[in-house]
Amino acid sequence: MAVVNSTFFSDIEQGQLGQHYDLTTIMDAIPWNSDGLISAIAQDIHSKDVLMLAWINRDALLETLNTGQICYWSRSRQRLWRKGESSGHRQKLIEARLDCDGDSILFLVEQAGPACHTNRPNCFYLRLNKQHATILTQPII
Amino acid sequence: MAVVNSTFFSDIEQGQLGQHYDLTTIMDAIPWNSDGLISAIAQDIHSKDVLMLAWINRDALLETLNTGQICYWSRSRQRLWRKGESSGHRQKLIEARLDCDGDSILFLVEQAGPACHTNRPNCFYLRLNKQHATILTQPII
Repeated sequence: MAVVNSTFFSDIEQGQLGQHYDLTTIMDAIPWNSDGLISAIAQDIHSKDVLMLAWINRDALLETLNTGQICYWSRSRQRLWRKGESSGHRQKLIEARLDCDGDSILFLVEQAGPACHTNRPNCFYLRLNKQHATILTQPII
Repeated sequence: MAVVNSTFFSDIEQGQLGQHYDLTTIMDAIPWNSDGLISAIAQDIHSKDVLMLAWINRDALLETLNTGQICYWSRSRQRLWRKGESSGHRQKLIEARLDCDGDSILFLVEQAGPACHTNRPNCFYLRLNKQHATILTQPII
């Protein structure tokens, strides 16, 4: 949904199944925001639960694809964030999928332990309705 | 992961299962970004596939919770985007879940037709590996 820096993503919409493009071409076409980031969603490959949303820059994405371990960019710490580097709650990359306008990526992962810093299985633990927010889950460790 | 405008979200981490808070309190605590937005993920309630990532502001979130139909904020058009208003590919809200730092929301939805503007079932149709991006799916209509 960002203002894209090329027509690359609209040009490939009609591409054939299985058609492929060099990773460098994609990396150059991604509409990184003013901080050099796109959003990244982690989904559990087994339960299919959405685990968390974080941010990733070019270096973090390349590291993730090359090592098979998820590496984000920490906006609060302004550095690469190798998920689980302190907690041990690592995410093993199973598959990475970029979206239609290139500004969001979905990681299918094998999650070790809780994904959330609150030690809940995932970060989405507050159910909202028109009146309330309700706590849905508790820390598992 | 944004710089939060209160300690609300860290204060409630230890809240009990089922504990609830007024929606207004939550709305005021959400760390809306400089454009007044947080990210919103739509997940199919049946297949559990992640459908898309978009953005939502306070008005769009309130409308979504009150009508039960997903309404985003379109950054390109700078207006409320009632998903499916032109295509008919609407998203019915089943459950909304805010994350641990309040800057991302997960919508579990019933999706009518394809979720993606390319007429694919979901937006994440480019698989990335360390060398290539490959087209995974084709338009279904």
